Amino acid sequence: MELYDVIIVGAGPAGLSASIYAKRAGLKALTLEKNPMSGGQVLNTYEVDNYPGLPGINGFDLGMKFREHADKLGCEFREADVISIRRLGDGEAAELQAASMGNQKTHGQKGYCLLTDQGELWTKTIVAASGATHAKLNVPGEEELTGMGVSYCATCDGAFFRGKTAAVVGGGDVAVEDAIFLARGCSKVYLIHRRDELRAAAVLKKEVMSLPNVEIIWDTVVERIEGEEQVESLSIKNVKTGKEEKLSVQGVFVAVGIIPQKEVFEKIVQCDERGYLIAGEDCATTAPGIFAAGDVRGKKLRQIVTAVADGANAITSILDYLVNQ
Amino acid sequence: MELYDVIIVGAGPAGLSASIYAKRAGLKALTLEKNPMSGGQVLNTYEVDNYPGLPGINGFDLGMKFREHADKLGCEFREADVISIRRLGDGEAAELQAASMGNQKTHGQKGYCLLTDQGELWTKTIVAASGATHAKLNVPGEEELTGMGVSYCATCDGAFFRGKTAAVVGGGDVAVEDAIFLARGCSKVYLIHRRDELRAAAVLKKEVMSLPNVEIIWDTVVERIEGEEQVESLSIKNVKTGKEEKLSVQGVFVAVGIIPQKEVFEKIVQCDERGYLIAGEDCATTAPGIFAAGDVRGKKLRQIVTAVADGANAITSILDYLVNQ
Repeated sequence: MELYDVIIVGAGPAGLSASIYAKRAGLKALTLEKNPMSGGQVLNTYEVDNYPGLPGINGFDLGMKFREHADKLGCEFREADVISIRRLGDGEAAELQAASMGNQKTHGQKGYCLLTDQGELWTKTIVAASGATHAKLNVPGEEELTGMGVSYCATCDGAFFRGKTAAVVGGGDVAVEDAIFLARGCSKVYLIHRRDELRAAAVLKKEVMSLPNVEIIWDTVVERIEGEEQVESLSIKNVKTGKEEKLSVQGVFVAVGIIPQKEVFEKIVQCDERGYLIAGEDCATTAPGIFAAGDVRGKKLRQIVTAVADGANAITSILDYLVNQ
Repeated sequence: MELYDVIIVGAGPAGLSASIYAKRAGLKALTLEKNPMSGGQVLNTYEVDNYPGLPGINGFDLGMKFREHADKLGCEFREADVISIRRLGDGEAAELQAASMGNQKTHGQKGYCLLTDQGELWTKTIVAASGATHAKLNVPGEEELTGMGVSYCATCDGAFFRGKTAAVVGGGDVAVEDAIFLARGCSKVYLIHRRDELRAAAVLKKEVMSLPNVEIIWDTVVERIEGEEQVESLSIKNVKTGKEEKLSVQGVFVAVGIIPQKEVFEKIVQCDERGYLIAGEDCATTAPGIFAAGDVRGKKLRQIVTAVADGANAITSILDYLVNQ
């Protein structure tokens, strides 16, 4: 049985920041990553221009830089998928208590057992930094044609549509960024938005509207994605007039929001109505010893800067928790 | 009269992050800096190893990188000292309302007038990012010998004491970092702490205790700093035994905490008992349209990562404020 002061679930900006802070605080910490690549959603971002100090950096590079930072400090990582989490029983807790772990004394915390596809892990505390994933349109053809013209990541797949026609669905920052990115290579880009105004930042709106090969289709939803082996067209519908139309495209990029990855935590941690783990700025959830950091936490602004702050705040709260409990 | 959507008071990590976010949001923003050099306290930090993505960076370089990022985006800066801030009267508010400002519509906010040493500035909102400064020991000799052996910044002044004996006063991260830094050049470093345990991070404690030329003097306070034209000695007192002693040193580095720079805000914004501006994660203070970011905000963890998060949160709150008020 392996015993830790803290197990950090997730290796995006929040998880990596928590790793760095945990290491510097002298905690025995382990960071679990689902994929062989750290960085989370950042990896799929073409350009990040709002992480102070690294202007205009490619998202992939930023993810790598975060991971290299943690590696340089000697942070411990493992590729593992968490299946379930349970609170330790009294006997187990006594065992945890008795074991020497890191340089933090135990003070009667019960601790948790994480069941992973790589075996069981015991820990006094957990940082839930599991992030979020892309929301789907849930229309016919979407699942069938995923990877065959349907994509959730313009940065990853945009290059396949060079010289072709693509559509982006959504109206937020990511959708508009995707449209701008695709417009560099595609002959034509449709930006399909269900409302009559984009939610995206002003600078992005201005930029996308200035591009001659981007056409914004307002008040419109996608009803079906069609094609035999590849995407060939979209059936779209104007929600105000009810008018239906067929749009010939070779690719469709879905950018309609994110879903918190709360599954392994939701049985022991209270979530808000949108599925995010309820936790304040100190990252403390409703479960003692579990702290939520990054996009999975219920908060207003999901950005790299707020994720890295969460990682630091979560570890600081854990240091207090380990001493005071 | 110059009119702004937001004036950011301070150009440390919080202020610079707010500048970046404000610019990207299309706000007409101005950042005021007291000194010709941006970066705030970071500038005086020898090495920053917990800002993810830039491991082991020199504090001065990090400050420069933050500022260059803002410059690259075309953020507007001005060197000016704020003398006072007052809420606009009804007539002035109507004038502000009438004027075209940025791409944000006005919605009846009264706005503020900042009186600076460079004249008056009108703005709808303010980000208070004025940071914090070093606390003093308030002992005889301290003021008289400042710059003549008494320093508040080992990074800035440490090199003057190469081969000499210096003392650091304090027990937190900064004090221990200062001692480690000075030990590289000084023949001998005393770390004088009024308690019997250091508050600093475990890795720092471990490192400082491993250095052969650092001696930690526990349970001890400095009573006087002595010297004719330069620091020559310290009178120290053990708080447990009452024993007084004279310590021969050529330099003394004071690292006993920070004081929030709240002066121009405290008349219109409520402060907590330690003098920090009261504001939650959304950075909203008790004054409508004034948002506190960085070290001047009452919060638990004062770090670069939490400062840059504050900058982003403050601007996001301002966008909501401008639309919803």
